[in-house]
Amino acid sequence: MAVSRTASAGAAKARKRPARAGSPPASPSADAVRIGDLSGFLGYSLKRAQLRIFEDFIGCVAPLQLTPAQFSVLMLVEANPGRNQTEIASTLGILRPNFVALLDELESRDLCVRSRSTNDRRSHILRLTEKGRAVLSRARKLIETRHEARLRELLGNENRDLLLAMLGKIAQEF
Amino acid sequence: MAVSRTASAGAAKARKRPARAGSPPASPSADAVRIGDLSGFLGYSLKRAQLRIFEDFIGCVAPLQLTPAQFSVLMLVEANPGRNQTEIASTLGILRPNFVALLDELESRDLCVRSRSTNDRRSHILRLTEKGRAVLSRARKLIETRHEARLRELLGNENRDLLLAMLGKIAQEF
Repeated sequence: MAVSRTASAGAAKARKRPARAGSPPASPSADAVRIGDLSGFLGYSLKRAQLRIFEDFIGCVAPLQLTPAQFSVLMLVEANPGRNQTEIASTLGILRPNFVALLDELESRDLCVRSRSTNDRRSHILRLTEKGRAVLSRARKLIETRHEARLRELLGNENRDLLLAMLGKIAQEF
Repeated sequence: MAVSRTASAGAAKARKRPARAGSPPASPSADAVRIGDLSGFLGYSLKRAQLRIFEDFIGCVAPLQLTPAQFSVLMLVEANPGRNQTEIASTLGILRPNFVALLDELESRDLCVRSRSTNDRRSHILRLTEKGRAVLSRARKLIETRHEARLRELLGNENRDLLLAMLGKIAQEF
């Protein structure tokens, strides 16, 4: 049976709409694709949770137009004044071409500046501009009071801290 | 003070080496970039754990040359025979151009085939080949008995199940 274009577009839109806090999870129907055993694999579940959290993060700092990666870079540069581009990129596990594009964007928006190291002319030292520090401070407030606060509410304080500890353990010891 | 090229390359290599199971986490030193408050954000910690888990997953199924995304597609196609390309891609949250490239690769390796739907000629139905089912079965065994088993060992059974439940809650209810 051919489904009309209108009905089909409507169904696609409904499937794409992200689940919001308070709305019940989509109930399985004859029409839903079965996730099956895949949901029992940690890698799959981690990736799905990470995508949802990044989506919410981006919405939360929409007035400031920051991605999670840009936010991480601003945080690290603020906490490590005088460190060079290579050190910050390798700490975050960001590949060089991606990191250069990311810095170009931050610099074009006057949030961060690169300057040649006086010790090693091939190396670029990073620092935040005054505007960069102000934007980072606003972003932190938005994320802490909205995004992270809602995660605490969803999981409970104790479970949220346990989750953070387990994720740290995987990143460092696995 | 200028650092010699050899010493500097050695230091970069040491920093890049991923932490392995059993090795202690890198201790903070005067040389290490400070992660600071960033590690308290769930998004950052989720992403770091996910990268580490994907890295281990890829190493674990190296004999079969499967990425986590390819594995997920094979799992879903096996569990949902007769579903079309759009349904599988949207269930996994994979964008169309990336999904087409992924299917091209699976098809060129004779793991999966696309065929035009008899109901809707614009739509492609997916199914695994016999080789695809055999490779998926071997991959599942490798991941369950090595990758997932080591995660259970690291976290403990109870915590591992709690982690999976919290990740599912974030993906569906946040």
